Amino acid sequence: MPEIILSINAGSSSVKISVYASPPSPSSSTPHLLAEAVVEGLTAPPAKLNYERGDQKIKNQELKDINTQEDGFKYILDHLTKDEGLPELAKREDIKFTCHRVVHGGDYPKSQIIDSETYHHIEALSDLAPLHNGPALSIVKAVSTLLPHATNIAYFDSSFHTSIPAHIHTYPIDQTIAKKNKLRKYGFHGISYSFIVHAVGDFLQKPQDSLNIVALHLGSGASACCIKAGKSLDTSMGLTPLAGLPGATRSGSIDPSLMFHFTHSAGQPSHASTEHLHITRAEEILNKNSGWKSLTGTTDFGAISKGWGEGDETMGLAFDIFVDRITNYVAPYFTKLDGKVDALVFAGGIGERGSQLRKAVVEGVRCLGFELDEGKNANPGGEVVTDISKEGARYKTLVVKTDEQLEMARGVLEDKERFVAQ
Amino acid sequence: MPEIILSINAGSSSVKISVYASPPSPSSSTPHLLAEAVVEGLTAPPAKLNYERGDQKIKNQELKDINTQEDGFKYILDHLTKDEGLPELAKREDIKFTCHRVVHGGDYPKSQIIDSETYHHIEALSDLAPLHNGPALSIVKAVSTLLPHATNIAYFDSSFHTSIPAHIHTYPIDQTIAKKNKLRKYGFHGISYSFIVHAVGDFLQKPQDSLNIVALHLGSGASACCIKAGKSLDTSMGLTPLAGLPGATRSGSIDPSLMFHFTHSAGQPSHASTEHLHITRAEEILNKNSGWKSLTGTTDFGAISKGWGEGDETMGLAFDIFVDRITNYVAPYFTKLDGKVDALVFAGGIGERGSQLRKAVVEGVRCLGFELDEGKNANPGGEVVTDISKEGARYKTLVVKTDEQLEMARGVLEDKERFVAQ
Repeated sequence: MPEIILSINAGSSSVKISVYASPPSPSSSTPHLLAEAVVEGLTAPPAKLNYERGDQKIKNQELKDINTQEDGFKYILDHLTKDEGLPELAKREDIKFTCHRVVHGGDYPKSQIIDSETYHHIEALSDLAPLHNGPALSIVKAVSTLLPHATNIAYFDSSFHTSIPAHIHTYPIDQTIAKKNKLRKYGFHGISYSFIVHAVGDFLQKPQDSLNIVALHLGSGASACCIKAGKSLDTSMGLTPLAGLPGATRSGSIDPSLMFHFTHSAGQPSHASTEHLHITRAEEILNKNSGWKSLTGTTDFGAISKGWGEGDETMGLAFDIFVDRITNYVAPYFTKLDGKVDALVFAGGIGERGSQLRKAVVEGVRCLGFELDEGKNANPGGEVVTDISKEGARYKTLVVKTDEQLEMARGVLEDKERFVAQ
Repeated sequence: MPEIILSINAGSSSVKISVYASPPSPSSSTPHLLAEAVVEGLTAPPAKLNYERGDQKIKNQELKDINTQEDGFKYILDHLTKDEGLPELAKREDIKFTCHRVVHGGDYPKSQIIDSETYHHIEALSDLAPLHNGPALSIVKAVSTLLPHATNIAYFDSSFHTSIPAHIHTYPIDQTIAKKNKLRKYGFHGISYSFIVHAVGDFLQKPQDSLNIVALHLGSGASACCIKAGKSLDTSMGLTPLAGLPGATRSGSIDPSLMFHFTHSAGQPSHASTEHLHITRAEEILNKNSGWKSLTGTTDFGAISKGWGEGDETMGLAFDIFVDRITNYVAPYFTKLDGKVDALVFAGGIGERGSQLRKAVVEGVRCLGFELDEGKNANPGGEVVTDISKEGARYKTLVVKTDEQLEMARGVLEDKERFVAQ
């Protein structure tokens, strides 16, 4: 009997669950996708269900009284067990493992089985990034009660970056307070970067611990990562996902004194604060009301690229800002690898679909030896990894279809012994 | 009769004045240094006078009742007029021009004659950087009364950077508030960068408007500048001098949400605030109580380099942090110049004296084609510009003894017609 693994990814207004079965052959480490369910629009009711299992598809089915991540999670659980086309998951007890993507995992260097101790630890460190850990927490809290037979595991976006050395992760601030309040660079998008290392290793047929990659995960949240010998050496995000590159509604790095000149209430609690979530006005503005939405009115980078192509000044400014800030990370990550680079990787929604953005970024660092094949860049196709470099270019440029759900499920298979032993 | 020019540079606890005479030949544009006076220790009384005129030297002469920048300015004025060895400046009326280094000049693209209108404009925009403009302001305010016969001119550290294009100087934040509150990247150390362009042009015998330079001004405040065709294309400082590289007591760029996790009173007024100066606790902490002082206890980077060389862990961390952050700017500025770089320039106190730092930075970007001559790097000598590159290195590395006082005085000679016309 294959074992059923749920990979759960909770966003600020959505819950996504991928259902995997362990592979029939014990020699394979790749789980098999059975179904995928997303509940969207939690913050703009009515919420909607999207579901795919083989050829079966449900599109934008409106749901009543589904308002929170926990509601969405329970709804999907029921939907999965009731789907007769999914006999492998006929009852909740069929679920052997659940994987939860948690953004901020503090110093946790790897995934953790969720028990009351780890739950409270995750809850405590979420104070560093309440806006980011909030969505996952209510599901993480509920899962032990809802699925007591399953092994429930938290995967952290920060874990991949625990290899970053002290001189890169230390901020030049009072170290007594920094240590007490756990203020350091953590970095995020680590589940995606881990997937990228696996995928590029397979594609180039190189051992993971020999891979040097300049990786870009570009979506509504965007970051860059310098991967040396398969491990994170530096990344653009910091204490929280706010630092580094701008995103759909995020400013990225700005002058640290800016917010005190933006509003006199920078340090006041935002309306989004609750008894347990402490969020300042400044953090809310910089995370939710900035980025290209604040420049252009849209969070859709496709529309921005289109506008840029048509000569629209506002869209052009947002596009050029993003390209500029990205090249500000590609170049130093190249030098941190001493020019010994296996690939520049584009991943994430914009990284995969933004051919104009890729072209502009690679143009910006062409003097380092990167060059694109225009045709391949325009249509990279559907593979997990696609080489879009020009023939003869000194360095490879790849597009990787990153899959955080799969990476977590694969992690379960790899770490099974650790989980069973615990 | 040569014309007397005073170049005035007010710091947080000091006032420095250099006395120049216009050159005898009208074909020369280089003023002639007559004397140099510094009053130091304004915040740690008694203040002390240091004075040099030819062979005449006064060292650490204690002064009574000199507590402010304006006190120091008046004291030096009296000292200069009473010095019988300086007959060119026998009375205040002999002073034809005064130059004032002002850190933040907002959008001013060039120096400004100080009248009541410009004074009030400078005062208003100083709200963006009260900690940085404060020291100069009291002297700027007093000078029209003290020296009514002179043409008094403000030089701004930000002016050199008004050439930075919109996609680099715009922050991805609400643009209505950004425009209203004048929130953008300005950049500083511009008087020094202007000097560097002059000096490197002379040294390489190239026209200034053909020069591409990656310039590093590294002192207790530190910044990097990408100079394309003699003009600033990008720089590491931002809305204020806080952004970018760390310094003696400054954090440099950090996660913009960090301060709200450092102290609950981040947005409260600091004790340094006055009716006219609005400074938050966060800005005071990040500007005055951070940087390598917060890491090591010293603001002396020479001591840090020494400790690093001796294997001291704390000093080593501070040293490595500084090197890491510097290379994070050198590499992207190299790519912004598309690899067409005339020189990597080290300037400022640490840039001139820190041979170990220079070595570590150049090692960090060696894959780009920079390489040092170890002997020349260890002892660059006393010239204004010294080439410390290894013979055959693809790119030049230079040490430049920057001189902001001289650059301002030279600006007077170049712009005389503009000033007289006004």
